[in-house]
Amino acid sequence: MRTRAAVALAPGKPLEVMEVNLEGPKWGEVLIEVKATGICHTDEFTLSGADPEGLFPAILGHEGAGIVLECGPGVTSLKPGDHVIPLYTPECRQCPSCLSRKTNLCTAIRATQGQGMMPDGTTRFSMLDGTPIHHYMGCSTFANHTVLPEIALAKVREDAPFDKICYIGCGVTTGVGAVINTAKVEIGAKAVVYGLGGIGLNVIQGLRLAGADMIIGVDINNDRKGWGERFGMTHFVNPREIEGSVVQHIVNMTKTPFDQIGGADYSFDCTGNVQVMRDALECTHRGWGQSIIIGVAPAGAVIETRPFQLVTGRVWKGTAFGGARGRTDVPKIVDWYMDGKIQIDPMITHTMGLDDINKGFELMKRGESIRGVVVY
Amino acid sequence: MRTRAAVALAPGKPLEVMEVNLEGPKWGEVLIEVKATGICHTDEFTLSGADPEGLFPAILGHEGAGIVLECGPGVTSLKPGDHVIPLYTPECRQCPSCLSRKTNLCTAIRATQGQGMMPDGTTRFSMLDGTPIHHYMGCSTFANHTVLPEIALAKVREDAPFDKICYIGCGVTTGVGAVINTAKVEIGAKAVVYGLGGIGLNVIQGLRLAGADMIIGVDINNDRKGWGERFGMTHFVNPREIEGSVVQHIVNMTKTPFDQIGGADYSFDCTGNVQVMRDALECTHRGWGQSIIIGVAPAGAVIETRPFQLVTGRVWKGTAFGGARGRTDVPKIVDWYMDGKIQIDPMITHTMGLDDINKGFELMKRGESIRGVVVY
Ligand SMILES: NC(=O)c1ccc[n+]([C@@H]2O[C@H](COP(=O)([O-])OP(=O)(O)OC[C@H]3O[C@@H](n4cnc5c(N)ncnc54)[C@H](O)[C@@H]3O)[C@@H](O)[C@H]2O)c1
Ligand SMILES: NC(=O)c1ccc[n+]([C@@H]2O[C@H](COP(=O)([O-])OP(=O)(O)OC[C@H]3O[C@@H](n4cnc5c(N)ncnc54)[C@H](O)[C@@H]3O)[C@@H](O)[C@H]2O)c1
Ligand SMILES: [Zn+2]
Ligand SMILES: [Zn+2]
Ligand SMILES: [Zn+2]
Ligand SMILES: [Zn+2]
Repeated sequence: MRTRAAVALAPGKPLEVMEVNLEGPKWGEVLIEVKATGICHTDEFTLSGADPEGLFPAILGHEGAGIVLECGPGVTSLKPGDHVIPLYTPECRQCPSCLSRKTNLCTAIRATQGQGMMPDGTTRFSMLDGTPIHHYMGCSTFANHTVLPEIALAKVREDAPFDKICYIGCGVTTGVGAVINTAKVEIGAKAVVYGLGGIGLNVIQGLRLAGADMIIGVDINNDRKGWGERFGMTHFVNPREIEGSVVQHIVNMTKTPFDQIGGADYSFDCTGNVQVMRDALECTHRGWGQSIIIGVAPAGAVIETRPFQLVTGRVWKGTAFGGARGRTDVPKIVDWYMDGKIQIDPMITHTMGLDDINKGFELMKRGESIRGVVVY
Repeated sequence: MRTRAAVALAPGKPLEVMEVNLEGPKWGEVLIEVKATGICHTDEFTLSGADPEGLFPAILGHEGAGIVLECGPGVTSLKPGDHVIPLYTPECRQCPSCLSRKTNLCTAIRATQGQGMMPDGTTRFSMLDGTPIHHYMGCSTFANHTVLPEIALAKVREDAPFDKICYIGCGVTTGVGAVINTAKVEIGAKAVVYGLGGIGLNVIQGLRLAGADMIIGVDINNDRKGWGERFGMTHFVNPREIEGSVVQHIVNMTKTPFDQIGGADYSFDCTGNVQVMRDALECTHRGWGQSIIIGVAPAGAVIETRPFQLVTGRVWKGTAFGGARGRTDVPKIVDWYMDGKIQIDPMITHTMGLDDINKGFELMKRGESIRGVVVY
């Protein structure tokens, strides 16, 4: 069949919207119609050429929602008409990682996904002249139709709006999941969130859901103060407007008459800046503070600290897709949204058609959107 | 009163054994007779001048065992004749850290202990000419008699031999505790221990106690292979005798026909070398590997890694005194020793009188002893 897609032809160039060929689903695969897709920093990271593993030409996009049109042979858990969210972290339930119950990082199709291919090592997309087009993060939601393995699709309820729940395919789950799956924040905790963008705001609402007492947001952009407060932030710090170090400032903020040591119970990096990652670790409480890295750093960048920070009880962790097992957890997060436990609508600041997708990238790069969503 | 002590007069100089003055216990303090004390790398770290916070003159030593001679006013939990192990990490049971139940790093007397003083800000030791002598880590076990706060003494059973259980005051508890309190290793785990000295060998026996399946020891000294095997090590790696990187070597060793990703479930740094600390993190399993830093790095040294290591699920931690709450946990470890659950005797390779303490330091520096113990 043919479908319309925004194709990344080369690094550093805008996407080009065009007709492409799409082969039907092979064994264990599913053809879906994408109804909406968010634009995430990770797409921009690859499109810009900054990702050393980026492949071109490719159809980017990994934050979608849509409807099953056709199932390939061997597919048992989905049928045409089902509403689904594509998963860049699949959940096969059979690999050593899935069976460990200790991680969400399913490895069933990792190698081929990293090569921009379906599990059989081939691609379903091609240009009209026959040139193969790479898949992206196993999803390629910047196409009106796409093919994914069954294990990379979460089945969700049918009354949920596609143009909102697409965001659960990456940003919402990453932020909320980092709080509840990775950090396992408890009621009454004090937490700090560095970077109040599309990820950080979801960490904030995850913290509210978890019952945190103190939710400190840190951003160099003062416009983000109002945004943070909307989702539960209790205090805001702009590192450029305080005297001395952010670390000391946060340690002081978290002191109490009883606890004069100070420090956050949990901190989250949602900037991708390695210096911020160090601050995030060091502002946590001696003895038990945990710092979770969510941001993706530039290629080759390293984090560093004195080992004494860890020997005195701080823990350094990271999270991918918020530690969520997609097929199991994503449908629950959709329920939470429908039940009003978490908000999504106000974060979707811009919607557009596929033809305007490059404008969506511009808004994101200028820091003007929280989330831009393409509606097909 | 007067007592005999090995005094550190200046950095880089041998200890000098001499008579010193010792004042009796003040409010909340206890006078003990030290019966035996181990010599640990941390003493050498300070004596050498490498510790920027080292104070002189001081009476070093922090790995002792002895008998209570006299209790100051306000002391309720100890009486003359009780057998005790001094704790450089006290357990007051009232400070924010103790009450958190999340850390063993009691802060009740941290500030004065760091200044080489008793909690009232003065010292009990002085030279015969009246010059005050600093306490060390709140313990100063290189003196035949010493004064400690009640909260820094663990009461232990009376049938346990002092010249063995003194080692529980630091090395044994640090190593065994890192496994059971900090890493919480489970039966069947695969673990790697870097550095098979007085700490690493205790990590190994902690891993055996925890039921680990694979206990890989890594040391650049081949003599340590036999030592590791004696306490439960199942595999030995000398980084200088393999081709390629230690990290890849260990990842390969831990692969199974089912799990072709490989990597250790837990790793422990017992070297204090920051490059080893990085290897220790990176040889753990994607998704859930935990690496615990025990070694103390040179002043100013930093650890580094790419944040991707953490984003893909590895956890970086550290431990001090094995995460043990001294007054609660040390008596249990003494029981484990008396019940034969853990071994100590073979690790005490040398015993000596106080006059020969500098020989004990030499043996340790040359890597010839596992533990040297001074018996008074
Ligand atoms: N681990 C995962 O699974 C995962 C998933 C999605 C995105 N990400 C990563 O999360 C990060 C955040 O993504 P986003 O979409 O929220 O980005 P964003 O650009 O919307 O938000 C980043 C925010 O950080 C602020 N910021 C930048 N530098 C700062 C500094 N030095 N101090 C304080 N604040 C600073 C910016 O002002 C902005 O508000 C990115 O690195 C992205 O690649 C990770
Ligand atoms: N965190 C704590 O509470 C705590 C408590 C006590 C001691 N320590 C620290 O633990 C560390 C170990 O103490 P120890 O008494 O066992 O020391 P040790 O000297 O007895 O043992 C160190 C071992 O590491 C080996 N080694 C050195 N460099 C190596 C390398 N590059 N690769 C592999 N092996 C290497 C040596 O051959 C030796 O066998 C020290 O740094 C000490 O200060 C920490
Ligand atoms: Zn994303
Ligand atoms: Zn899997
Ligand atoms: Zn305490
Ligand atoms: Zn020690």
